[in-house]
Amino acid sequence: LPPKLPNTGTTIFTVMSALAAEHGAVNLGQGFPDFGADPGLLQAVTDAMAAGHNQYPPMTGVPALREAVAAKLNTLYGAAYDAGSDITITAGGTQGLITALHACVGAGDEVVIIEPAYDSYDPAIRLAGAVPVGVPMTADYRIDWAAVRAAVTPRTRAIVINTPHNPSGRVATREDLLELQRIADQHDLFVVSDEVYEHMVFDGAPHESVARYPALRERSFLVSSFGKTFHVTGWKVGFVAAPPVLSAAFRRLHQYTVFTVHTPTQHALAAYLADPSPWQGLSGFYQAKRDAFRAALAATPLKLLPCEGTYFQTVDYSAVSDLSELDFARWLTTEIGVAAIPLSVFYQQPQQRRHVRFCFAKRDETLAEAARRLARLG
Amino acid sequence: LPPKLPNTGTTIFTVMSALAAEHGAVNLGQGFPDFGADPGLLQAVTDAMAAGHNQYPPMTGVPALREAVAAKLNTLYGAAYDAGSDITITAGGTQGLITALHACVGAGDEVVIIEPAYDSYDPAIRLAGAVPVGVPMTADYRIDWAAVRAAVTPRTRAIVINTPHNPSGRVATREDLLELQRIADQHDLFVVSDEVYEHMVFDGAPHESVARYPALRERSFLVSSFGKTFHVTGWKVGFVAAPPVLSAAFRRLHQYTVFTVHTPTQHALAAYLADPSPWQGLSGFYQAKRDAFRAALAATPLKLLPCEGTYFQTVDYSAVSDLSELDFARWLTTEIGVAAIPLSVFYQQPQQRRHVRFCFAKRDETLAEAARRLARLG
Ligand SMILES: CSCCC(=O)C(=O)O
Ligand SMILES: CSCCC(=O)C(=O)O
Repeated sequence: LPPKLPNTGTTIFTVMSALAAEHGAVNLGQGFPDFGADPGLLQAVTDAMAAGHNQYPPMTGVPALREAVAAKLNTLYGAAYDAGSDITITAGGTQGLITALHACVGAGDEVVIIEPAYDSYDPAIRLAGAVPVGVPMTADYRIDWAAVRAAVTPRTRAIVINTPHNPSGRVATREDLLELQRIADQHDLFVVSDEVYEHMVFDGAPHESVARYPALRERSFLVSSFGKTFHVTGWKVGFVAAPPVLSAAFRRLHQYTVFTVHTPTQHALAAYLADPSPWQGLSGFYQAKRDAFRAALAATPLKLLPCEGTYFQTVDYSAVSDLSELDFARWLTTEIGVAAIPLSVFYQQPQQRRHVRFCFAKRDETLAEAARRLARLG
Repeated sequence: LPPKLPNTGTTIFTVMSALAAEHGAVNLGQGFPDFGADPGLLQAVTDAMAAGHNQYPPMTGVPALREAVAAKLNTLYGAAYDAGSDITITAGGTQGLITALHACVGAGDEVVIIEPAYDSYDPAIRLAGAVPVGVPMTADYRIDWAAVRAAVTPRTRAIVINTPHNPSGRVATREDLLELQRIADQHDLFVVSDEVYEHMVFDGAPHESVARYPALRERSFLVSSFGKTFHVTGWKVGFVAAPPVLSAAFRRLHQYTVFTVHTPTQHALAAYLADPSPWQGLSGFYQAKRDAFRAALAATPLKLLPCEGTYFQTVDYSAVSDLSELDFARWLTTEIGVAAIPLSVFYQQPQQRRHVRFCFAKRDETLAEAARRLARLG
């Protein structure tokens, strides 16, 4: 077999979820809710199936869903996406991401990723034949733009950004986006922008989408998904928004990668998006969970890092243990009964930090039980 | 943008479906049923959603579905697939196919495809960095094994086969599979076997799966799907069966391509597979449609080619027109009101034949209306 991704094992999320299940640990590792979705959304899928929406949809996605997505992006971010030429429905954020990367980079290209970087960026870039160049964030998890500039070479073709940022919980600012725009313009880079946590931004801050910045939008693949927004991570429906030339390149690959996406779910989402309240209320919903979880952890020796968005809380455990992040995450799962994700898996090079990530997209009882177990660390 | 698939336009299925819709033609082009799925299957999805199966499933697929698939393959084909290590649930047949190809071929490799070849094979191979080598079938659409042998070089790494065969409707025989096995053994080739029409084989013939032949199974990725079998082409759930080493390579790519597949549908299919009658009855169901459609076309000047399997009927229109296949398919759609697929799109090199494909996965009234319109050709 050809050496595709020779150093790649099973994704950490699968590994830790399996370990959590085996040891009866509270699973705050892999990011998914342990509560139900809106019954109205489930009903919409049932309705779509009953209406006969079970055959191939158009390759680019169900028109009503593309219209709803374009309208939402245009309203929220002052963009001007066209549902016909600029929006493609994907089989989740992961597929949107890998197909966008394949559309814009190839052999010999370099792609800047900001570390800690979600674990699919590196293999997706390598599979496109390009080289991922990791640029670590600052010590407090801000994008280090001087380091980004230093990493750009004549071979750099694209940069991947992610805001709100998984795993750090940081949210990019207007200044970050303007700096990104300057660098991308200066070096003529494509931008792949992972915005799957776009509706989880706390304390009144805005989500700074690439869609807000016309000069940036023109060179960007905006990747998002419905799974996290509507508490259905297993539905695997997302979208990519990009200007016509980029979308055309994207669709050329998309049609031979998955061709199309689950038809009844697309119809259901199109109908469900008519009411903005579910996603408008999401930041408040998760901010309350964040606050409760942080309050509960305050009694432990874990040091809480800032959490400005996403449903992840990163902590520093150096007061508790000197184990590596991976070993600590395993120990926490098997001995304390709470699964977490070690941040080390999001870097190309070994790091010296002692940070793990908890997912707080859980029922209040689940978070309380996790906090009770973590109190044993004290 | 890098020149990925520079000569690739929009897939013919999208083009002809759009043209059919625009002109109010009876759409016998793209292969999908115009009748409903079993309400019991739709109910099973509703039940799975209500049971809370809406979050990420295991990366390889819902265990109950992998068990059901392995049991079915093992029973039907005398195989010995292990649900844990050998079965991966995919986002439809297309994704299974492209990911299998990426798992087994790379830059510099050649891959033999049998022409007419389903239109995603060629781009999928190119995207993996390899070179597709088309080997035309014989004049009556049998695999030309002498030509296959002549096409194999030291760089050949894999061969793609498809039985029942789209678009010709031919079904491979035991002799075909034994010849495939000999060639694959002799040249140490991987086999990617597209068997999505496995349950549509007529006149009592068996489906000759690679899974029936242990020496072949060991080097094969068996790709199939539920969409065609259960009349839900828009659901996009399929599977790849392959021995452990091949499955491990497949999964390494799968996890960064789509990660996972629509959870509630997986649970529904697992439950639905408990009753074999839906797929056991499928060949008879489509054989009746084939017979009715052929009888209706007998009155036209279209020459019917053999149809041993699939839901496609290929015809020779040379008694009617000298237009190229693509032009004739367009003319038939816009002027006669019946959409078809030109076989020319399934070849690398221009062909001199006059063949188009009709899909007969349609209600009896639809087929009758199409036949009425086609009678105008006489
Ligand atoms: C795709 S599984 C992992 C879910 C996720 O995005 C995360 O936990 O970071
Ligand atoms: C993936 S759309 C085309 C459906 C099909 O397999 C066919 O019509 O041949």
